[in-house]
Amino acid sequence: MRAYDIIYKKRQNQELSKEEIDFIVACYNNGDIPDYQMSAFLMAIFFVDMTDEEIFYLTNAMINSGEKLDLAMLNMASADKYSIGGVGDGTSLIVAPIVASLGICVPMMAEHGLGHTGGTLDKLESIPGFRTNIDKKEFLNILDLIGVSIIGQTTEIVPVDKKIYALRNVTATVESIPLICSSIMIAEGVENLVLDVKVGTGSFMKTYANATRLSEKMINIGKKFNVNTSVVISDMDAPLGNCAGNSLEIKQAIEILKGNLKNDLYELSIFLSALMIYNVKKTITLQEAKILAQKQIDSGAALEKFQRMVHLQGGDVRAVEDPQQFLPKAKYKMEIKSIEEDFISSMNSQKIGIAEMLSGAGRAKKEDTIEYSAGVVFYKKINEYVKKNEIIAEILYNSPSHIEEAVAMINDSYTISENKNIKRGFSKNPNVYNYCEFSDNGKIKTCAYHTISTSF
Amino acid sequence: MRAYDIIYKKRQNQELSKEEIDFIVACYNNGDIPDYQMSAFLMAIFFVDMTDEEIFYLTNAMINSGEKLDLAMLNMASADKYSIGGVGDGTSLIVAPIVASLGICVPMMAEHGLGHTGGTLDKLESIPGFRTNIDKKEFLNILDLIGVSIIGQTTEIVPVDKKIYALRNVTATVESIPLICSSIMIAEGVENLVLDVKVGTGSFMKTYANATRLSEKMINIGKKFNVNTSVVISDMDAPLGNCAGNSLEIKQAIEILKGNLKNDLYELSIFLSALMIYNVKKTITLQEAKILAQKQIDSGAALEKFQRMVHLQGGDVRAVEDPQQFLPKAKYKMEIKSIEEDFISSMNSQKIGIAEMLSGAGRAKKEDTIEYSAGVVFYKKINEYVKKNEIIAEILYNSPSHIEEAVAMINDSYTISENKNIKRGFSKNPNVYNYCEFSDNGKIKTCAYHTISTSF
Repeated sequence: MRAYDIIYKKRQNQELSKEEIDFIVACYNNGDIPDYQMSAFLMAIFFVDMTDEEIFYLTNAMINSGEKLDLAMLNMASADKYSIGGVGDGTSLIVAPIVASLGICVPMMAEHGLGHTGGTLDKLESIPGFRTNIDKKEFLNILDLIGVSIIGQTTEIVPVDKKIYALRNVTATVESIPLICSSIMIAEGVENLVLDVKVGTGSFMKTYANATRLSEKMINIGKKFNVNTSVVISDMDAPLGNCAGNSLEIKQAIEILKGNLKNDLYELSIFLSALMIYNVKKTITLQEAKILAQKQIDSGAALEKFQRMVHLQGGDVRAVEDPQQFLPKAKYKMEIKSIEEDFISSMNSQKIGIAEMLSGAGRAKKEDTIEYSAGVVFYKKINEYVKKNEIIAEILYNSPSHIEEAVAMINDSYTISENKNIKRGFSKNPNVYNYCEFSDNGKIKTCAYHTISTSF
Repeated sequence: MRAYDIIYKKRQNQELSKEEIDFIVACYNNGDIPDYQMSAFLMAIFFVDMTDEEIFYLTNAMINSGEKLDLAMLNMASADKYSIGGVGDGTSLIVAPIVASLGICVPMMAEHGLGHTGGTLDKLESIPGFRTNIDKKEFLNILDLIGVSIIGQTTEIVPVDKKIYALRNVTATVESIPLICSSIMIAEGVENLVLDVKVGTGSFMKTYANATRLSEKMINIGKKFNVNTSVVISDMDAPLGNCAGNSLEIKQAIEILKGNLKNDLYELSIFLSALMIYNVKKTITLQEAKILAQKQIDSGAALEKFQRMVHLQGGDVRAVEDPQQFLPKAKYKMEIKSIEEDFISSMNSQKIGIAEMLSGAGRAKKEDTIEYSAGVVFYKKINEYVKKNEIIAEILYNSPSHIEEAVAMINDSYTISENKNIKRGFSKNPNVYNYCEFSDNGKIKTCAYHTISTSF
């Protein structure tokens, strides 16, 4: 068997066998197949797609590249949430402690950010001392103690995924549905998975059609692995929450966990948590699960869980108690004011994500270092009314080298017009998101609307 | 500018600018862009194609990666011939000395073989002492002295082509029309180019439609570079000549140059030579040019030119005088006999090429070493009548490790049936090839048929 022939076969749109997929993954993992053959193979997959069988074999081959994560020994029900990255999407930081505070194990493996999308690991690492580079043994220990941990990819569990993911990031092969599917499913030793598929300018999934295709694939692959998979399709035409930046988003998550902030990020986090809880505890309704999730915030249980995770992963817990003082702060700020008076009718979240990156909060290349304190704060969001010269956003930064570009990006991202945007999200009702769950046969069943307030 | 964004843009089927193409080629050449990004880019090109403008910019960027070959200082008319590789295609070995013997400069840059297709360089290197690794200065010196030289890619002239070609060979991106076009045109400092586009099982171009598309592109790109480009589309469903192998094909070329052999390889070589001569000397007809080409063989002038080239490139000229004694000979042979009595209705040249490779004459991987003396001899070819147990082919080899597979491939490649194959070539007349020249507007104009005898 030769890598060349497997690349050629995929390029010719022929279905690969289990043996061929096993061969290319195992040989790439042990270094026998070089990066340049793998990247050509990944680009061919981008163009010709893979069948459900091929995705199943690919996922399996990746899992077999390392040690399995045996959650059964923990003797807890388990659930995970995975978001297709967006701008300002800090749901993991809120969802994980809420769900874990109800005795459900939440073993999250997250990523660093690249390009216009942020990464959960960078956000957590903005807490002084916080470690995400944790091995399998310590991961299981923390899960055993508190039921929740958020770590980076390890070299023990699915090492080849780390290698493939890094390669996809630099070869424009991230937005491939079969590759996204397998990379999500490999991390799942869990029983229940809620997938938050973002769709819109700020997501890898630009169209609703692509998002539903990914969703259907994930449901099917989940079934093959006995992972009960639910999908939420949520809007990423505009960013989520009040800010985009690492320590900024940690501070915001803490405010939400303290019950002080009820914005769209809060609403989506409650909803995702509820779906995870509902999938584990089949005896309650989704509405009851939502109330349960909210209670975990009101009682302080979720905040306590977050604080214990920060402590066990080496972070300074004072940052949770007093974020204003103990989280990194940017030296400078630049206010962006409205030049017109009217409604904000759109916020291009890809451009906002690029502005965030240019502020210093993100990476253009893998090797770039980031400023934890940099980022963008949104004072006004979609369908809010602004007066002339009112501050709509603010850029926080330490180095002014790309600030002019960042300001231009923010200005370019906001559109102000006399009418509200009635197409917000996927429903025709402004300020409303469609929530789509999937029925057993894998077809989309719209079963609820989820109202998100835009005022904060 | 970032490689990522350029790969992404191409992947999204957007036209690249001159600056973007210059950037990716220059940075790949100097090592700033790694192989894995280039191979993803090449695979994206394979899938989305390139416009004529993009191919022009790509070719130019490649030429700018090194020194230019200034043929003007030689003060001779120049012409070159380039074949899209096939099985048993030794036309370069015959065409170059014929044309050069008429005072036309023929500066050929050729390749080593890979997979099922042979390489002109390997064939020449089977002559003891023959050097193809020749620098620009020596290349120009030899051209100045005798008007002909066949060398490998140098690190001075278009160094990035060598790098890109090697990468394409191992990432299944050889069969891309824009990449083929640019890689052919970069070598051309010449005034006239005849392109021999092979189509059929043994060629990279499997369909006539693809072959004509490549032909049209080449004509257009040629115009942009002021290279007068003619295209011949010739059949590669069956192999050319009486054998496939390195020293075997040198021996055959010498027999043809000596006037001792008039097979299909001879006919095609005369035709390609005539087209080159006709393009240079506009005052004669194509028919007169053919007669002129034949005369160069009959007079011994072409053979003498070949012998001088062998001498100046370090080869043992005794191999030209007495190939039987001075060319490498295989230790073993295996005869393949017909199990039926009837016409040979097809010979799958891809399978024959693989058999040739398995005999030891070719490389499965770039790093493989080859046996110069190994290969396949065809005793019977398409539309010839065979009796039961008559020898149809013979495999020559030194190591028996893959001989069973090679025999199976040969057996599999021949089809014997009661009727002749009337679809031989592209015309309905057996034993006839279409010859296609291109009119000024770049559209195919079939202007002549070229009869090729199948008996030898």
